Amino acid sequence: MKRVYILLAEGFECVEAMAPIDVLFRAGVDVVRVAIGESLDVKSSHGLVTLRCDVTLAEADFNDGLALILPGGNPGYINLRNNDVVCRVVREFYKSGRLVAAICGAPTVLAAAAVAHGSRITCHSSVIADMGDYSYVGDSVVEEGNLITAAGAGISIDFALSVAARLVDPETLSRTRQGMEL
Amino acid sequence: MKRVYILLAEGFECVEAMAPIDVLFRAGVDVVRVAIGESLDVKSSHGLVTLRCDVTLAEADFNDGLALILPGGNPGYINLRNNDVVCRVVREFYKSGRLVAAICGAPTVLAAAAVAHGSRITCHSSVIADMGDYSYVGDSVVEEGNLITAAGAGISIDFALSVAARLVDPETLSRTRQGMEL
Repeated sequence: MKRVYILLAEGFECVEAMAPIDVLFRAGVDVVRVAIGESLDVKSSHGLVTLRCDVTLAEADFNDGLALILPGGNPGYINLRNNDVVCRVVREFYKSGRLVAAICGAPTVLAAAAVAHGSRITCHSSVIADMGDYSYVGDSVVEEGNLITAAGAGISIDFALSVAARLVDPETLSRTRQGMEL
Repeated sequence: MKRVYILLAEGFECVEAMAPIDVLFRAGVDVVRVAIGESLDVKSSHGLVTLRCDVTLAEADFNDGLALILPGGNPGYINLRNNDVVCRVVREFYKSGRLVAAICGAPTVLAAAAVAHGSRITCHSSVIADMGDYSYVGDSVVEEGNLITAAGAGISIDFALSVAARLVDPETLSRTRQGMEL
């Protein structure tokens, strides 16, 4: 079974995390939820929900991962980019040509990890100033090479479908969309 | 603070539930999560996530609720419509002119509760046959009187915004959309 990893830090945006988890499950892709801290239970931004993860960052073996997903949310994206291990994992995925997908504030993790400088990206309008070394595009979803970026929570489902489109065949993607009435 | 209630049964669709919880929180509306069973912890469809609710159905006092939200998901919507108390609460909201919002398979709960017969509705394509006494419209979101229905998980964010639009002023709605980059 194809496998991807999603990194969850305290303060993640719940729909930005849940949409990829749901859409990729529907498309037959295993999504491993990785808690950045020591606890498997991670609170979303504003404490709206608590998500039980599958493994902690210390335990996770990312070798079988086809993609790495970085949700935004405040302070989730700040907690991601301030974590050296997260930045190292992002570099490993990106430099090995595997997909890295970041939404909302999470494209700033790319900058912290020092990958994909100069790439066309999008991000939440509140963090554009943090993306100086990148070519900001005002689109909702931007794809360049093995990088997918998206603007914010309202784009979560399109973001998730863009990731799915890289991992499954067109028929599976079409069936996934139909099941969601898209 | 304005308050709405969302009913969560084992097997709810996680994005259909999370999008209203997130969007309405952003719009300044309190969303009370009501677990249909005896446990506050409710598993979403396919066990993807477990959501900790605020109250159980037996404890909930719906008097201060401006709206009732019914997510779909299989077998979540079946567990909702098979629950007599759920059907009674749906009738109470609908007949008192308060908003009832149902997505995916959850419009069938309206039929089980015997409310709004003849109304224009939409629903997941797999349950159209269950909506014989209603006027099925193939749109993504359908609004008629104090009823909002939506087709499926891919429409979750639009569904949530349609509910928000009934509860908050246009400026707040606009700010909510902007914060989500819509």
